Amino acid sequence: MVMLKEDERLDYLLAENMRIIQSPTVFSFSLDAVLLANFTYVPIKKGKILDLCSGNGVIPLLLSKRSQAHITGVEIQERLYDMAIRSVSINNLEDQISMVQDDLKNMPKFLTNRNFDVVTCNPPYFPTPNKDEINENEHLAIARHEIFCTLEDVVYTCAKLVRPGGKVSMVHRPGRLVDILTLFRKYRLEPKRVQFVYPKQGREANTLLIEGIRDGKADLKILPPLYVYKEDNEYTKEVREIIYGK
Amino acid sequence: MVMLKEDERLDYLLAENMRIIQSPTVFSFSLDAVLLANFTYVPIKKGKILDLCSGNGVIPLLLSKRSQAHITGVEIQERLYDMAIRSVSINNLEDQISMVQDDLKNMPKFLTNRNFDVVTCNPPYFPTPNKDEINENEHLAIARHEIFCTLEDVVYTCAKLVRPGGKVSMVHRPGRLVDILTLFRKYRLEPKRVQFVYPKQGREANTLLIEGIRDGKADLKILPPLYVYKEDNEYTKEVREIIYGK
Repeated sequence: MVMLKEDERLDYLLAENMRIIQSPTVFSFSLDAVLLANFTYVPIKKGKILDLCSGNGVIPLLLSKRSQAHITGVEIQERLYDMAIRSVSINNLEDQISMVQDDLKNMPKFLTNRNFDVVTCNPPYFPTPNKDEINENEHLAIARHEIFCTLEDVVYTCAKLVRPGGKVSMVHRPGRLVDILTLFRKYRLEPKRVQFVYPKQGREANTLLIEGIRDGKADLKILPPLYVYKEDNEYTKEVREIIYGK
Repeated sequence: MVMLKEDERLDYLLAENMRIIQSPTVFSFSLDAVLLANFTYVPIKKGKILDLCSGNGVIPLLLSKRSQAHITGVEIQERLYDMAIRSVSINNLEDQISMVQDDLKNMPKFLTNRNFDVVTCNPPYFPTPNKDEINENEHLAIARHEIFCTLEDVVYTCAKLVRPGGKVSMVHRPGRLVDILTLFRKYRLEPKRVQFVYPKQGREANTLLIEGIRDGKADLKILPPLYVYKEDNEYTKEVREIIYGK
């Protein structure tokens, strides 16, 4: 039996028979993570997938539904790592998913370089935390602000660990698009697919999904836009299917 | 009276009382030029606007409807320049629009640097013309392929001629997004607004509109997508209004 700690809940993940431990005060997965898992192309039968900034393990859990590849999740925060390993255990996925608690900047030493077919990352979005902006909750602050890793650390690490021809996918804010594309190209992750996510029709995008291929050829596609809400503030059919399955 | 040459036609521009000389074998303006003119913010009462790769002058003509600023158009091809000056004359816009026939790479010597409030450009899209791909029609080939100017030439020239805080807007293909953003930032035109144009819902974008501000602060917005055609292959309401007016 798995014990829940403090204010943790055991939530359903998707409509599928999968559960995930969350906590409103420590960490709950976001729609962004679900969209990133859905956006990412994965090998179906075999291979190695790496998820950086893994949080409570939501992306490894989601990807395990679509792939038999082995999935490694890396999370720096002990408290979140601890939630992740318990969720892996609840879902009997210990054989497929390994969690590592460490700084992603150590990974190029710890894991074999150029070894992963796919690397995913939902990194902290906000670059320069100042006292006023930063969340007083340390767990949330670390997940949201570039306290332990900058965008460049993340892109560098992805590029180092993915195999030539392998894919790196990331979710971020459109305001960082220039930085992201510049860093992807700097570390030879050629941007191949970008999708912008719009909260509603007629609004500016508030999320971007990007996939780069290590040593790929320049040929970027901008996918059809994804709208999250309809005019009546209900999820669009497309997003509902991503979250709850078809 | 203005004489038309060879297979030239005198076409209506927008629904407005404006005419433009075009020719199917030499040059006809594209929807991209109309979208760029619509996308561009212009000073209403005064100022200086520059249009590079001006073709038959479509962008200066369109912008003259929304701005009293003086507009300079630069076109390298004598034949297209000649169409442009006659169109300017037909519309009695000689006081507002000046056309220059020259290589845009000469402009930083010829025009006063850092002098324009707005610079627009609908450059050639295709980078590496080879014998198979290139249009046998020389006029069309020069307009479409980077024969006389590369993307870097264009961005460099825009950045040199626009004033600090002034705007540069461009239309291009999404496949070049990484190059465009990288070059914009290299020449200190900070990307501020990007809009992707999709032929239809559910398709990948085939056009991008971008605005950068010289020495601007990093803060990119991804505007709502623009769809050109409805399912029935008619123009969408939005595009119809851009082309024909409301």
